[in-house]
Amino acid sequence: MIKKVELPKGFKYYGKHIGIKRRRKDLGIIYSDTVSHSSAVFTKNTLCGVSIPIGRKNIENGELQGVVVTSGVANVATGNEGRDNTLSILEALSKKLNIPSENILPSSTGIIGKQLPIEKVLEAIPTIQLEEGEKALRDFAQAILTTDKDVKLMSIKVGEATVLGIAKGSGMLEPNMATMLVYLLSDAKIDKESLKEMWLKSVNGSFNMMSIDTDTSTSDTAAILCNGVAGEVDYDEFSHALDYICLGLMKEILLDAEGATKLIEVNVTGAATFEQAKKIGKSIINSPLVKTAIYGCDPNWGRLIMALGKTFEQDLDMERIKIEFDSVIIFEKGTGVDGNHQKVRNYLKENKEVKIKIDLGISDQWATVYGCDLSENYIFLNGKYTS
Amino acid sequence: MIKKVELPKGFKYYGKHIGIKRRRKDLGIIYSDTVSHSSAVFTKNTLCGVSIPIGRKNIENGELQGVVVTSGVANVATGNEGRDNTLSILEALSKKLNIPSENILPSSTGIIGKQLPIEKVLEAIPTIQLEEGEKALRDFAQAILTTDKDVKLMSIKVGEATVLGIAKGSGMLEPNMATMLVYLLSDAKIDKESLKEMWLKSVNGSFNMMSIDTDTSTSDTAAILCNGVAGEVDYDEFSHALDYICLGLMKEILLDAEGATKLIEVNVTGAATFEQAKKIGKSIINSPLVKTAIYGCDPNWGRLIMALGKTFEQDLDMERIKIEFDSVIIFEKGTGVDGNHQKVRNYLKENKEVKIKIDLGISDQWATVYGCDLSENYIFLNGKYTS
Repeated sequence: MIKKVELPKGFKYYGKHIGIKRRRKDLGIIYSDTVSHSSAVFTKNTLCGVSIPIGRKNIENGELQGVVVTSGVANVATGNEGRDNTLSILEALSKKLNIPSENILPSSTGIIGKQLPIEKVLEAIPTIQLEEGEKALRDFAQAILTTDKDVKLMSIKVGEATVLGIAKGSGMLEPNMATMLVYLLSDAKIDKESLKEMWLKSVNGSFNMMSIDTDTSTSDTAAILCNGVAGEVDYDEFSHALDYICLGLMKEILLDAEGATKLIEVNVTGAATFEQAKKIGKSIINSPLVKTAIYGCDPNWGRLIMALGKTFEQDLDMERIKIEFDSVIIFEKGTGVDGNHQKVRNYLKENKEVKIKIDLGISDQWATVYGCDLSENYIFLNGKYTS
Repeated sequence: MIKKVELPKGFKYYGKHIGIKRRRKDLGIIYSDTVSHSSAVFTKNTLCGVSIPIGRKNIENGELQGVVVTSGVANVATGNEGRDNTLSILEALSKKLNIPSENILPSSTGIIGKQLPIEKVLEAIPTIQLEEGEKALRDFAQAILTTDKDVKLMSIKVGEATVLGIAKGSGMLEPNMATMLVYLLSDAKIDKESLKEMWLKSVNGSFNMMSIDTDTSTSDTAAILCNGVAGEVDYDEFSHALDYICLGLMKEILLDAEGATKLIEVNVTGAATFEQAKKIGKSIINSPLVKTAIYGCDPNWGRLIMALGKTFEQDLDMERIKIEFDSVIIFEKGTGVDGNHQKVRNYLKENKEVKIKIDLGISDQWATVYGCDLSENYIFLNGKYTS
């Protein structure tokens, strides 16, 4: 998508093909002119990639000055050799950029179990040219993709400062406390503690509420870097800006999910607790039968009822549940509203973003979760993709 | 499948088309000449079909003499009208067979949210003709199917007695404490308490270890009826026979799962606890990325590692995990065994039953779980199936 993005001051970018993938760009770097206040969350997958523990350590002091991403090879299940490879990339980049390697966040995404062609990476690093501007940013955004069809970029102004977000998504995606690869850059001045708090809130309300296929990746990373160049901003406004960018990037990831044709937003209200609302929402967006029904533009509320009930939540009561598609009631008082069936079918046929509202009628807690439909193309892409 | 089955003494069957479905048989009845010692387990889906609470009540005293199944309409989310319909079916059948309605177990399977065409069912019941023999049994087995391609029947002798199993499966299937529709009939004489114990053990070791698509149906029922006509049998032998039939039917259900081309058996060993082994096994057979890889005959152990790690079990250690396909090691000591890749690919291409063994190297507990692959046909069947 060619969309206008605003760039925060003080960041430079790099993205090139260096030979990890066959043809597409595969090495991406972000550099901040000054040390940035930073926060990051990572996959909770216990068998995670070698970048993850290194990144966790490097983010501990809340400071980063660079990000390096290789795509095509995930560097997961690669043993000591894999770990040494990532450390030598950080070392080479530290030398080239003249910053401590502990201030660089490494990420890798792609096939699990292959070693990086480390010579190619180490040959490329001394030759890299960092640049400002949108062209270099788009090169970086392309260099972090795998099966994504397009780059995911969003920006918003907060006072004099700008917040820029860059993401990749695709498949193997039900983040837990973190997500795929997401980088937010800003020139706002924010203290480390507040930044961490705001970042966790934004990630929990967006990426942690989505699922493409229930499969939690081994390499998820979501990081934010604020270099402070544009000075102080209103913290509330900045926090809202983070929410806005995270939700926006999340929707772009879902619309570009492997084989997806529709984004599904499920708003569960009237729950006893937030956890119950989230659990029920996740049960719905993760149900293959719900996903295939939406793909087939079928207002099959029976499958929604099944997905509600399979959470084994004991306080669910068929009589009190109300289900709406885009404000059109299709189920209430224990049974379907047949008159609205065709109306909802048309709604499903005409819209790429499907909104489902489910009121449980228990209490007043709620959650919104996000998913996508399941098409033959998901099977094709993942059945034919060869290890 | 036309397979020879042995029939237990003292049971009669019925199966006909009476107008719930368009053409296929849709009303099935089993009748025991005498009151049978019985046990049954049901779906844990909290928004379950109207038959389920009625069945739970009727099985309480451990006695049944009949089973009635309607297929095509699940009678779920149908309110008081749906409940009255099932009760009136039981009443009509009670009159026709001259047995108490509390000794009849009702089941319904099919579309959620539609009312049964109750007049058609009530018109048919007074005219039914129960018969002994394999033809009538096959009529019953056909009458309980929905999207199943074929009937599922198995039998085994235990001393003088016979154990016969009849099942249907297909989709919306990750049973919890119960399963789809499964009926076991035997002429063995077994006391009620032992029967219940053996039945729970067999169901927990088979149907509760399988998943087709993570979706727990609203109508699952698994019941066993023993009329005692053939006299006493060895209890251990009988218990083994139940295991044998349950596992056999479970495999037939998986091989006939919606869109499935392969059965996947995952044996997780070396776990800290049985629960851990089962959780990890389920994570693997429920992973869309693992399922599509098996469909594509791709020995993608990277996705198995991902599915292991996304259980968030903290004691997993990449270095101690060993993965085998049909005794061929494809992953150990933290990395892949590349030399065996083609061998495993050929194994996947040549076999409909895929055996995966995963040793965690933690302790000595284990579990075996069962699933199937995920093909475009699952999407086609469920995307086009209209509510």
